Amino acid sequence: MAKEKKAPRPKAETPKGFRDYFGAEVTERTQMLHQIAGVYHRYGFDALESSAVETVEALGKFLPDVDRPNEGVFAWQEADEDGNGDWLALRYDLTAPLARVYAQHRNDLPTPYRRYAMGPVWRNEKPGPGRFRQFYQCDADTVGAASVAADAEICSMLSDTLETVGIPRGDYIVRVNNRKVLNGVLEAMGLGENADHDAVLRTIDKFDKVGEQGVRELLTKGRLDASGAFIDGVGLSDDQAEPVIAFLTSKAADAAGTLANLRAAVGGSKIGQTGIEELETIAELVQAQGYGADRIDIDPSVVRGLGYYTGPVFEAELTFEIFDEKGRKRQFGSVSGGGRYDDLVKRFTGQEVPATGVSIGVDRLLAALREKGRIQSQATGPVVVTVMDRDRMADYQAIVAELRNAGIRAEVYLGNPKNFGNQLKYADKRNSPVAVIEGGDEKARGVVQIKDLILGAKIAANATLEEWKERPSQYEVPRSELIAKVREILEGQD
Amino acid sequence: MAKEKKAPRPKAETPKGFRDYFGAEVTERTQMLHQIAGVYHRYGFDALESSAVETVEALGKFLPDVDRPNEGVFAWQEADEDGNGDWLALRYDLTAPLARVYAQHRNDLPTPYRRYAMGPVWRNEKPGPGRFRQFYQCDADTVGAASVAADAEICSMLSDTLETVGIPRGDYIVRVNNRKVLNGVLEAMGLGENADHDAVLRTIDKFDKVGEQGVRELLTKGRLDASGAFIDGVGLSDDQAEPVIAFLTSKAADAAGTLANLRAAVGGSKIGQTGIEELETIAELVQAQGYGADRIDIDPSVVRGLGYYTGPVFEAELTFEIFDEKGRKRQFGSVSGGGRYDDLVKRFTGQEVPATGVSIGVDRLLAALREKGRIQSQATGPVVVTVMDRDRMADYQAIVAELRNAGIRAEVYLGNPKNFGNQLKYADKRNSPVAVIEGGDEKARGVVQIKDLILGAKIAANATLEEWKERPSQYEVPRSELIAKVREILEGQD
Repeated sequence: MAKEKKAPRPKAETPKGFRDYFGAEVTERTQMLHQIAGVYHRYGFDALESSAVETVEALGKFLPDVDRPNEGVFAWQEADEDGNGDWLALRYDLTAPLARVYAQHRNDLPTPYRRYAMGPVWRNEKPGPGRFRQFYQCDADTVGAASVAADAEICSMLSDTLETVGIPRGDYIVRVNNRKVLNGVLEAMGLGENADHDAVLRTIDKFDKVGEQGVRELLTKGRLDASGAFIDGVGLSDDQAEPVIAFLTSKAADAAGTLANLRAAVGGSKIGQTGIEELETIAELVQAQGYGADRIDIDPSVVRGLGYYTGPVFEAELTFEIFDEKGRKRQFGSVSGGGRYDDLVKRFTGQEVPATGVSIGVDRLLAALREKGRIQSQATGPVVVTVMDRDRMADYQAIVAELRNAGIRAEVYLGNPKNFGNQLKYADKRNSPVAVIEGGDEKARGVVQIKDLILGAKIAANATLEEWKERPSQYEVPRSELIAKVREILEGQD
Repeated sequence: MAKEKKAPRPKAETPKGFRDYFGAEVTERTQMLHQIAGVYHRYGFDALESSAVETVEALGKFLPDVDRPNEGVFAWQEADEDGNGDWLALRYDLTAPLARVYAQHRNDLPTPYRRYAMGPVWRNEKPGPGRFRQFYQCDADTVGAASVAADAEICSMLSDTLETVGIPRGDYIVRVNNRKVLNGVLEAMGLGENADHDAVLRTIDKFDKVGEQGVRELLTKGRLDASGAFIDGVGLSDDQAEPVIAFLTSKAADAAGTLANLRAAVGGSKIGQTGIEELETIAELVQAQGYGADRIDIDPSVVRGLGYYTGPVFEAELTFEIFDEKGRKRQFGSVSGGGRYDDLVKRFTGQEVPATGVSIGVDRLLAALREKGRIQSQATGPVVVTVMDRDRMADYQAIVAELRNAGIRAEVYLGNPKNFGNQLKYADKRNSPVAVIEGGDEKARGVVQIKDLILGAKIAANATLEEWKERPSQYEVPRSELIAKVREILEGQD
């Protein structure tokens, strides 16, 4: 027979920038999402799971360019007879789909509509270390509520959520700022109609990195950056820059002090005064619910997202210190952000719909808990029932069924049982706490051997040969006492 | 000023064949996945979440055609400088990614590798009523175990899973068949090397629809179908068709009887005898674990998937009756299927790796539970704290915080509070059980009004005007007794 020409073997690889999650990585995230959903639910938010695929048209921002929309989304064109099918794309966040859902179903949904959503989103970006093109988001938003009570509620919910997943009070802070106050500051600067507001906003965005003096220089005459390059300034006068600096550094010892500083910064600006009143109301409302400034704090130095949002802006930071990759101490930083945006639904309906919400970075939050040793990614494996006699598989299946019926995670070794050493190596790879052994001799005597693998590993690491030979980590018990003994060992290991 | 040219508004629509899931639809599915994961975990299976996006090369089956792979998957080409980027695609099931994951990580994974996976998959197919292009799968597979003990374990786990999610014993059956027995039957037919085995397999696949006599006709001289069209037969003689019929109808009162019938059907075929021994072993092993034929049964009439799998094949059916869309009684039918496939990993590594597994149709299982009234899709909404006095929002926030801290799902009305009727309409739309009212008068007297909305709706539906006026569904209690009264009402509503 002629030799068949073989196709080359496919590569067994995830696409660049994607990864797989195994075991505890999956279950810990599931557990955290479950806890967060519990808090969101208690606050009256309803679950929503929109489709992962949207039309590019509905997603907005990313409109078909020449041939293919490629501004950060994964997109493709539907095949139809004449090649003119819709462009579809994977969602890049959970907010754009919410706007589409609300516009589509607004007659059936309650108003205000409180919804939460959790799931993967996709970004067509250059992958880098720790940067993936698929990751989880976990959002809660209130659509159709103009009242800042909705913003205050998001803040207290965020505080509750962090404590529920295991961040103790004192290790986090929810900071609140307001875009309207910044708008007031811009008014107070008297820049005039044609001034480059965006350049000012972009500069403010760098406050986290360059600090007060850096922002001052960048707003005025320019600045030498760390690499020695000269960054052009916006060209404002020192007087014009001053309200911005006053705004960014207005944080005082208490909310009253901060608000007083802000009043000075916005001067006579109406919008600025409205923004300050909103912050004041938020402070009052969370106070009424028992949230002090140790949990939710008015802090005008929060600048992330000020360009995007239209009203209050929130950010949750973890305040404990960790060591970064270079061994330096630094604060863990932001795990959640959000704010008010009033124009997303308008794209579809022409009507402005007020909305506010928050997004929690679940993977960062998990990393923080692991960093603090609050969750252990190394999960305990199942009890392994070894196979001493291939023909008595039914006996081993009966043992494993008994263990499972007692609520104990357990499995029979299903590989080739010939080499017993391989079975124990397998149990080790599975991180099994206990192995059960029933050879022909044990069967005849009505007993089983039970090996405490955790204790055994400790002894193996430290013991002398004599101690090792005594094998104090292995027990022989009557078959009828199997469950009780396994349970005793498991409880002793906790 | 010149009028700006406006872009047309985007349509607020999911792409064709996609849909959104709201509230209880989401939480009930999450709950079911959680229950299933619990059983899988107890059986020693580990969670795996692979990326939703794979290279088309790794997915296999669907190779890039001329321009774009379009055989049932959503695929697109990565942009790179010279337009030769990889083709990527959304996964169409959870088995193909498992093969890729196992091949990629086989040196780090235990062997055998038991894994479960749950999540959406995508099919680029013509959508139809009730057919969506994104849906959930929930799989468990054991890779690297040649022993039929692995197949037996899948069957008992499937039985446990169905009972755990709420299908009582007696309302389901896990049926087991074996492709090897069918191969034995084909050998026994003496069709010769060049015979069209595929035509026979395709015919057997129709057994569910056309029954014994239909299969007999289709294997031989052909058959008039219901529409009056003549379907050509495979052209076998009656004698040649007989072993197939014997195979399909071999189910007897007990496993021993069925196996005896199968032995007659396969005659001297070695592969057939092996297949029968495997079924016998599976029957023994599940029996040893306490699963009788009322839960797991050898049944050669299970033909779904026989063409795809290489060994044992399983199917879980719900046996209770429902009314179909035409009002006729019928069995609910299949909710899960699986079997042994030994060639998926070979594509990547060249080595044959035995594997067996099962996939549960979560959405069908949810539909079954809803059909039986075991879950109610209409979830209870939150307690709604109404806003009588816009300036006292802090009071209402304090009430709602108190309710939540007591573990009661609650929210403040965040819409425009001017029209009180709208607030009650909102509570109705939210399916709220209770509304809390605290006007200025109540505040002054230190009381709150608590409305039992469920009882109120019942009274409104049936009451006379006099009864209605008495408003026995509304209670005035001291502010300090708010939590106790709300709890009392909620407990009375269960």
